[in-house]
Amino acid sequence: MSHYSESHVGPGFVSTFGDTLSMLRKLFQTTDPSSQPFVISGSGTLGWDLVAANLVEPGENVLVLTTGYFGDSFADCFNVYGANVDQLKPAVGSRPQLPEIEAALKAKKYKVISVTHVDTSTGVLSTLPELSELVQRVSPETLLIVDGVCSVAGEEIDFDKWKLDGVITASQKAIGCPAGLSISMFSGRAIKVFEERKAPIGAYFASMKNWAPIMRNYEAKKPSYFATPSPQLIHALNTALGQILSDGPLSARFAKHAEVSDKIKKAVEALGLKQVAAKPEDRSHCMTAIYLPDNVKAAEILPALAKRNVVFAGGIHKDIAPKYIRFGHMGVSVTDEKRGDIDRALKALQDGLSECGYQKA
Amino acid sequence: MSHYSESHVGPGFVSTFGDTLSMLRKLFQTTDPSSQPFVISGSGTLGWDLVAANLVEPGENVLVLTTGYFGDSFADCFNVYGANVDQLKPAVGSRPQLPEIEAALKAKKYKVISVTHVDTSTGVLSTLPELSELVQRVSPETLLIVDGVCSVAGEEIDFDKWKLDGVITASQKAIGCPAGLSISMFSGRAIKVFEERKAPIGAYFASMKNWAPIMRNYEAKKPSYFATPSPQLIHALNTALGQILSDGPLSARFAKHAEVSDKIKKAVEALGLKQVAAKPEDRSHCMTAIYLPDNVKAAEILPALAKRNVVFAGGIHKDIAPKYIRFGHMGVSVTDEKRGDIDRALKALQDGLSECGYQKA
Repeated sequence: MSHYSESHVGPGFVSTFGDTLSMLRKLFQTTDPSSQPFVISGSGTLGWDLVAANLVEPGENVLVLTTGYFGDSFADCFNVYGANVDQLKPAVGSRPQLPEIEAALKAKKYKVISVTHVDTSTGVLSTLPELSELVQRVSPETLLIVDGVCSVAGEEIDFDKWKLDGVITASQKAIGCPAGLSISMFSGRAIKVFEERKAPIGAYFASMKNWAPIMRNYEAKKPSYFATPSPQLIHALNTALGQILSDGPLSARFAKHAEVSDKIKKAVEALGLKQVAAKPEDRSHCMTAIYLPDNVKAAEILPALAKRNVVFAGGIHKDIAPKYIRFGHMGVSVTDEKRGDIDRALKALQDGLSECGYQKA
Repeated sequence: MSHYSESHVGPGFVSTFGDTLSMLRKLFQTTDPSSQPFVISGSGTLGWDLVAANLVEPGENVLVLTTGYFGDSFADCFNVYGANVDQLKPAVGSRPQLPEIEAALKAKKYKVISVTHVDTSTGVLSTLPELSELVQRVSPETLLIVDGVCSVAGEEIDFDKWKLDGVITASQKAIGCPAGLSISMFSGRAIKVFEERKAPIGAYFASMKNWAPIMRNYEAKKPSYFATPSPQLIHALNTALGQILSDGPLSARFAKHAEVSDKIKKAVEALGLKQVAAKPEDRSHCMTAIYLPDNVKAAEILPALAKRNVVFAGGIHKDIAPKYIRFGHMGVSVTDEKRGDIDRALKALQDGLSECGYQKA
């Protein structure tokens, strides 16, 4: 990030940006040349606009699988661009089940089905291979779009094998690059959808038609301009991706995230605490959303943790916001055991709860 | 930029972001409490979406004063969100004149009139006080919107006095912060327009309705969330604004930009070169777009300059692209004479032209 500023069309930066895009293909595990990575200044939220403004025409149907705050907001975004949105929205802490998804897909023709891989507000994980199989069997023409903001580089994503049409994410979570970049991968089929749509694309800055040639040119090491990229953030992303891809096979990275997550979940249970994600198989490997004991308030435990140099996040799901806290465990905190981040966080949680007067029953 | 990552809702960052927003009020010279600054991860281009998706309803009229590539593109953006766009578009190197603007404003009711303060593709400067007076006299209900990407912090902008309704800019030009932020200021009147509009706002990430409460909260030092900001870029912007605001009165900064610009333009004339901006009064003080001699190609002179550690930009106005180059002179290169940037660039231009076989006639 402390790299000097460079011309965004100069050969040095063009090469860095091009390499970064190629590395994203590896991270998303796609070798299909028709797949297209995008890196745009923005936040994870901008990825929703990419999907909603480009892949859906006004009046077309979208099925949103909601597992928390971020599913609801993605639905809001689809509505802004004129989609007819249906949501499958089970109780907080669970996820839509395959039979109800199958029924929905059979009842109506959907242009897009979207799923939040890990909803940061609940820690609920959606399993993609089974969902993909279902979509392929029941409604293969429907585009399968994954909100991977809180999963990419922490949970396994096999873009080609799972026949995904789009995965949108951000720089600052498991990829471990500072915030400020919207990162996404779209299939050749998705690209064709916005190239051949009848209605004009509903956004300008978020128009994939404006960005696709720019991304293709950068990856071919040709300078190109639609809007000025951030050389520093792209350099940081290049570094972060280089670290991830040089640190053994991706499968080992995902296994490590699962292993550390299991350890954390066991420790949380040992403290007598419940998780927002009700069933073990619905729990993310990148974070844990933890219900607080009845007598402990988020406004007490969060400062008690901060005093111990550990930052947990408060709740953001409106139905349960004051009742739970969130523990992120992804990236270097997980892969670099020497840092001791996880053990320190677990110890801080135990000590902090105890300071707040909590004793396991 | 090398600041460690912070929670975007933690007290340290909330305070930094709040101060940054307050400093923007000083930079734009607005003390009206109804004015609202916005800082969003993105590029300058995103500012067009803010204006076009929020302030204009489909079918409403917009008058775009075009002085180069960026006026044409702003018009494209307005079209995407359903506006009826009229452009005043004189020959390359000049700007629409007040009588024709007056005639246009009298012929039709415009919701918005937009002007590119400095068009980076041509170096043409539009003078805002006279334009503002005209709009106030002939069509005071029309919102006056300024694309200030290549002018803010280099050319004078007096937001309140000139009754501007919006100025959009980016971090990486005269403000001197790395690229990656869309920065803007809107009047209370503009805020009311999107709050009271009948049609829904046409974008999600670029919805000012989604962002306005977030910006108000941060400035009041309250944590708030719509989409994750970039702590590093906000820190860098805080530093850049701190440098600008502590370096004497803004009027001295603008006078210095004018003084250095005059010197450069004189030197360019002394080399026997013509400028894209035809009339002296239409020339930006932040950059100079220079026509190349007939026998010198951009593909020759740009590398000759690069060899001398000076980066000029190639042409981007499609009608004249290969025929000219662009010399940016803003920010520290202008205000910090000890750096010697300007003299080194002028010397490199002279030597580079001579290496390319050019002799003044």
